[in-house]
Amino acid sequence: MKKKIKMGMLGGGPGSFIGPVHRMAASLDGLIELVCGCFSSNPEKSLQTGKELCLPENRIYTSYQEMIEKEAQLPAEERMDFLSIVTPNHVHYAPAAMALEAGFNVALDKPITFSLEEAKSLAEIVARTGKRLLLTHTYSGYPLVKEARFRVQRGDLGKIRRVYVEYPQGWLSTDCAAVNKQAAWRVDPTRSGKAGCMGDIGTHAFHLANYITGLKPLELCAELNSFVPDRLLDDDGTVFIRYEGGARCLLSASQVCAGVENGLNIRIYGEKGGLEWRQDSPNTMIFRPVDGAAEMIRTSTPSMVSPAALHNSRVPGGHPEGFIEAFANLYRNFALTLQADAANETPCECCTDFPSVQDGIEGMQFVDAVVSSSAQNAAWVKWE
Amino acid sequence: MKKKIKMGMLGGGPGSFIGPVHRMAASLDGLIELVCGCFSSNPEKSLQTGKELCLPENRIYTSYQEMIEKEAQLPAEERMDFLSIVTPNHVHYAPAAMALEAGFNVALDKPITFSLEEAKSLAEIVARTGKRLLLTHTYSGYPLVKEARFRVQRGDLGKIRRVYVEYPQGWLSTDCAAVNKQAAWRVDPTRSGKAGCMGDIGTHAFHLANYITGLKPLELCAELNSFVPDRLLDDDGTVFIRYEGGARCLLSASQVCAGVENGLNIRIYGEKGGLEWRQDSPNTMIFRPVDGAAEMIRTSTPSMVSPAALHNSRVPGGHPEGFIEAFANLYRNFALTLQADAANETPCECCTDFPSVQDGIEGMQFVDAVVSSSAQNAAWVKWE
Amino acid sequence: MKKKIKMGMLGGGPGSFIGPVHRMAASLDGLIELVCGCFSSNPEKSLQTGKELCLPENRIYTSYQEMIEKEAQLPAEERMDFLSIVTPNHVHYAPAAMALEAGFNVALDKPITFSLEEAKSLAEIVARTGKRLLLTHTYSGYPLVKEARFRVQRGDLGKIRRVYVEYPQGWLSTDCAAVNKQAAWRVDPTRSGKAGCMGDIGTHAFHLANYITGLKPLELCAELNSFVPDRLLDDDGTVFIRYEGGARCLLSASQVCAGVENGLNIRIYGEKGGLEWRQDSPNTMIFRPVDGAAEMIRTSTPSMVSPAALHNSRVPGGHPEGFIEAFANLYRNFALTLQADAANETPCECCTDFPSVQDGIEGMQFVDAVVSSSAQNAAWVKWE
Amino acid sequence: MKKKIKMGMLGGGPGSFIGPVHRMAASLDGLIELVCGCFSSNPEKSLQTGKELCLPENRIYTSYQEMIEKEAQLPAEERMDFLSIVTPNHVHYAPAAMALEAGFNVALDKPITFSLEEAKSLAEIVARTGKRLLLTHTYSGYPLVKEARFRVQRGDLGKIRRVYVEYPQGWLSTDCAAVNKQAAWRVDPTRSGKAGCMGDIGTHAFHLANYITGLKPLELCAELNSFVPDRLLDDDGTVFIRYEGGARCLLSASQVCAGVENGLNIRIYGEKGGLEWRQDSPNTMIFRPVDGAAEMIRTSTPSMVSPAALHNSRVPGGHPEGFIEAFANLYRNFALTLQADAANETPCECCTDFPSVQDGIEGMQFVDAVVSSSAQNAAWVKWE
Repeated sequence: MKKKIKMGMLGGGPGSFIGPVHRMAASLDGLIELVCGCFSSNPEKSLQTGKELCLPENRIYTSYQEMIEKEAQLPAEERMDFLSIVTPNHVHYAPAAMALEAGFNVALDKPITFSLEEAKSLAEIVARTGKRLLLTHTYSGYPLVKEARFRVQRGDLGKIRRVYVEYPQGWLSTDCAAVNKQAAWRVDPTRSGKAGCMGDIGTHAFHLANYITGLKPLELCAELNSFVPDRLLDDDGTVFIRYEGGARCLLSASQVCAGVENGLNIRIYGEKGGLEWRQDSPNTMIFRPVDGAAEMIRTSTPSMVSPAALHNSRVPGGHPEGFIEAFANLYRNFALTLQADAANETPCECCTDFPSVQDGIEGMQFVDAVVSSSAQNAAWVKWE
Repeated sequence: MKKKIKMGMLGGGPGSFIGPVHRMAASLDGLIELVCGCFSSNPEKSLQTGKELCLPENRIYTSYQEMIEKEAQLPAEERMDFLSIVTPNHVHYAPAAMALEAGFNVALDKPITFSLEEAKSLAEIVARTGKRLLLTHTYSGYPLVKEARFRVQRGDLGKIRRVYVEYPQGWLSTDCAAVNKQAAWRVDPTRSGKAGCMGDIGTHAFHLANYITGLKPLELCAELNSFVPDRLLDDDGTVFIRYEGGARCLLSASQVCAGVENGLNIRIYGEKGGLEWRQDSPNTMIFRPVDGAAEMIRTSTPSMVSPAALHNSRVPGGHPEGFIEAFANLYRNFALTLQADAANETPCECCTDFPSVQDGIEGMQFVDAVVSSSAQNAAWVKWE
Repeated sequence: MKKKIKMGMLGGGPGSFIGPVHRMAASLDGLIELVCGCFSSNPEKSLQTGKELCLPENRIYTSYQEMIEKEAQLPAEERMDFLSIVTPNHVHYAPAAMALEAGFNVALDKPITFSLEEAKSLAEIVARTGKRLLLTHTYSGYPLVKEARFRVQRGDLGKIRRVYVEYPQGWLSTDCAAVNKQAAWRVDPTRSGKAGCMGDIGTHAFHLANYITGLKPLELCAELNSFVPDRLLDDDGTVFIRYEGGARCLLSASQVCAGVENGLNIRIYGEKGGLEWRQDSPNTMIFRPVDGAAEMIRTSTPSMVSPAALHNSRVPGGHPEGFIEAFANLYRNFALTLQADAANETPCECCTDFPSVQDGIEGMQFVDAVVSSSAQNAAWVKWE
Repeated sequence: MKKKIKMGMLGGGPGSFIGPVHRMAASLDGLIELVCGCFSSNPEKSLQTGKELCLPENRIYTSYQEMIEKEAQLPAEERMDFLSIVTPNHVHYAPAAMALEAGFNVALDKPITFSLEEAKSLAEIVARTGKRLLLTHTYSGYPLVKEARFRVQRGDLGKIRRVYVEYPQGWLSTDCAAVNKQAAWRVDPTRSGKAGCMGDIGTHAFHLANYITGLKPLELCAELNSFVPDRLLDDDGTVFIRYEGGARCLLSASQVCAGVENGLNIRIYGEKGGLEWRQDSPNTMIFRPVDGAAEMIRTSTPSMVSPAALHNSRVPGGHPEGFIEAFANLYRNFALTLQADAANETPCECCTDFPSVQDGIEGMQFVDAVVSSSAQNAAWVKWE
């Protein structure tokens, strides 16, 4: 009989968007069970959510400090194996650091921390404690994103020249912070950090481009905008990125594209061909050879060839897999890695393929660089 | 602290397609936990699967009879609340009947039984025992299918005239029964029943049209074909259906549309407008008014208005939901209904909205009618 | 200096839809010039249209009889080379017969005549006079339809099993005959013929399937409907067709699919693969191999390989070609054939690839058969 | 009897891409007839093309000087009304200037001239002579582009914030100048001008954004790249544009997006909604309100309300119109304007809606600015 991996959760109480997503992603494959949580800084709300989630009262906590301390005192068989942190950005570092130091693995929603300094500090703790950290850059969990990465690495595109990555949304087109809890903290520099849109979704776009291409960014030139009156952080931005080896990336992100839902997409062109993928129809990827007919690569079909892509699919082609499955792939791989760790085995290559603290640092470097470039009227800023 | 609903499973051992889908669908929302199972008629395989699923050995059984008997002897707090049956069609009736008689609720993969007679007998047992039966016609679980039903009922289309429903697949284009376990039983009349393609996927198309339109079929005219040499059951068919009130439906299903994955789609036109939905891009539905611009209705957005659609969505618009989420909607509603039953409460209208034994009977009537019509060279056959 | 082919026109006066289309199609390639016409049975309207078209008054006629007689008396260098007939169905046969007998070639809008008898009579005259007849089944003029035909002939699909061809429209969803000149004659049996929707657009669908597959129909089973109250002809219908060799076709046509514009599409599946094409995005065709990635075949690109397809394209890939270009391909090939005839040369194979009187007879046979089958409650009717 | 407008042509001989397009566009509507031409600097080739086009030998010229001089000596009834210039960029100014001075109107392929200085000089001649100049920025001829302009002007989008306009192509992904005549001059600075990709297609993207939004550019920041080794001009570039009033535009153009055909597209978002249009499916435009369902605006349908859009459509909705029709709209409006001029009437507003010399100047200013910015490592360059 296999053992399920035990998860605790920080955040994700009433009204949360991403908390339930993390919970569904964690339960989908039957590898992880939620055993405890502190779901809100308000004890009543934490209790309410915990009960709805069928947790016993003694595993529903009122602060992360209490949760980490009490869980650490439980027998190894009972206590959580990792803590999942789904709070706003300013409440990432402290609980993650404390959990790692207490011997727990950690799953963290992105961006990793409030600042680059915090991210670097967290990396130090991860390295020192030897615990695992999962950073939930969801979009790298899609099977066809794995396939894209595989095909770039195999050389199907030849040397890469041009990358376009876009993340348009429209939900912050109006001044909705007063009525929308999700909006409120994202547009507040004391909770979100230096950047608004660029931290929230620009980092997803940046991560996606890096994940697929494996290219190393050298410098960037960015313009950030705040279109909604009195908004303190950017709600839109555009970036030129120069990669090592001469490739160029055009990255844009916006939260004021009125009427657009969640239009993350990437297109990559090299000397021999191109790849195109859109998050809102994630089960099809177009491969364009430099000559001849374009191909429709499909999730879970004979047209999808990489082991990583197959490993991250669940149902036969034509049965659409979506956002929750992509998210669940991160949790599944993390859980398989923790199972292997527990068994003193080397986790498989597909299992350890989840974003980690290094991706988090790169994301915060990106945020720092775009904010700095924009403040200098779109001057080129080199990577630290 | 809420209680999770406890599930046992029959079938879904090594090599199963639909077994894991049922398990993922059941776990997604954290309302159901798998507590026991008989996963294969081969005891070793059953044990292997049970262990992989983290079940204790004493809850892994070697026959459904053993499972039902032993579970019935467990304390009410421990034993399964319902049995999920995911075996081929010829192993539906007996375990479902036994489980119901033993006081368990039942979830059944479609088509409900091997024959219409069995379906009617099952309906009698359901009525007599007062237990719940869920029939997993997955596609009625999609949020936009709920929305379509709502809009038809509200009268957005006016009186319905014409329905097109298609279910093309290509995976049985070759004689693959020898190498594909999924194919083997579907093309075998002793395991599948009177019909092949029409029983397997034609019933899905038929159910979808009925679910959305609420129309009552009067008679049909069908032609079934077996294109692959030596195949004993239909692998393709086309049907004219006449509904009460004058509406007409053209239904087609095929498993020899080479290269097509899973192309279920429906289009419905009335006096005032039309609706179009495709399973392979399930998060968009087109509404066409008789004049003016067509609208793109989207899952989880302000353009989607029915309570049932919102109840059956999990993430904000633009985060694609797929096949597993649709399947999970059936399980979630079933579980919410069982929870209400357990609490002696009336389950909400959205909760009881899952296919049941009556849908199963109608599906078997459809199978009987198409087979009979085709045998008479496409004569009209009236509904029984 | 090459000579342009001279065209006369019957019909196409004020308010005509298809008249201007014929004129644009004829002029597009600079091979044909309009030299005369009788554009309306109303002499004033004929004159008005003729003047707008820059014709001299002495070449604007008041009846087809006058036009044919007077044109025949002009010097060979001056008179029209062919007469284009764009009137409603009941005014096809007489002018076409007279023009052929007077030594003129003829272009005819579809369906070829009011009745099958007329079509057969016209075929006799064509054979006897040795003149050319173009029947404008527009959709066979699209480059990718040529490509589809080529690929089927080359065997890319293997033996064909299943054809789906649909022609849904919505413009006759309401009783608009009183206010819409185009609708008025189409729903009037004295002008349209035995069939409404099936004659108007069903024949297009039928021709398209035959043109691409080259299959010979054996028998059919049809149900025709009139959904709009008091309509005398069918506005919707569905047909099963059995082809020689065992292939099956499901054909549907409707003019009451509320909100649908002009949704002609065809899908063909054989033992080795499938092809899918839609008229409303005519520059892409999908090829699905039985295994592996589907290909997007595109107009005027390296992915399009047949000489006929290239011959019928004008601009590089990515510059969309549309309905008028497809229509113009018929006229261009007809003109190239007439030029070759005039030079006593054998026209090229691509040039003579336009629908002719034989296609017209087959279309009328189809109309007769579907009307007969429907009158017998969808009995099978064999091809004459 | 109306008179056709008489056209002469410079360029467009054997192997030309755009010459035949201009000729088809000019003939489509029966308003313009080709009466003379100098189709190549090689007299034999000019003669060959002229004969194929059914021109008499005395109207086939060997130089533009000869053509302009001889045509000017013909009677007013006979001579060309305008000269269409379809040569590479370095042969635009001199013939255009000479034709205007000789009293002819002029149609010019874009970009207007080799340099901004030439463009300004041409504007002076146009103003002084009072002749008409048509600049063929094709894409502004599409009906839905007219509709987009109309809707922006009407305020459907509210104040515009963000524009994305892209023009990706892949046909210059390899070093094909030696074998592709179309490529050869475009990558040659002595024939193309300061810019390659940005002059050839970047100007189209820029014009499209300006045409639809009516916004005035203030400054830009650009990075140009030459990815193919030894290429002397840019084959790729990205630009940030700041408009008056605070709107921002991200413009990209590339000719090394391997496998992409002709992907011009534009998306515009304002406070109240967004519009999205793609050239490769030009008959659909998406309108996204800030809340509620997106609408599919279609060419030639009741949902498309602007007079300009209807004026520039030819066939009912669902009959796709394409690139040649869009191009023909420019010629048709130009011809209608010349007819009005000839009749001393004021041409209608829809008729004079074609790109002219002022658009040409703005295009050359754009080219100068992007080249200058890129040379300064993406510094901001203000509009002159």
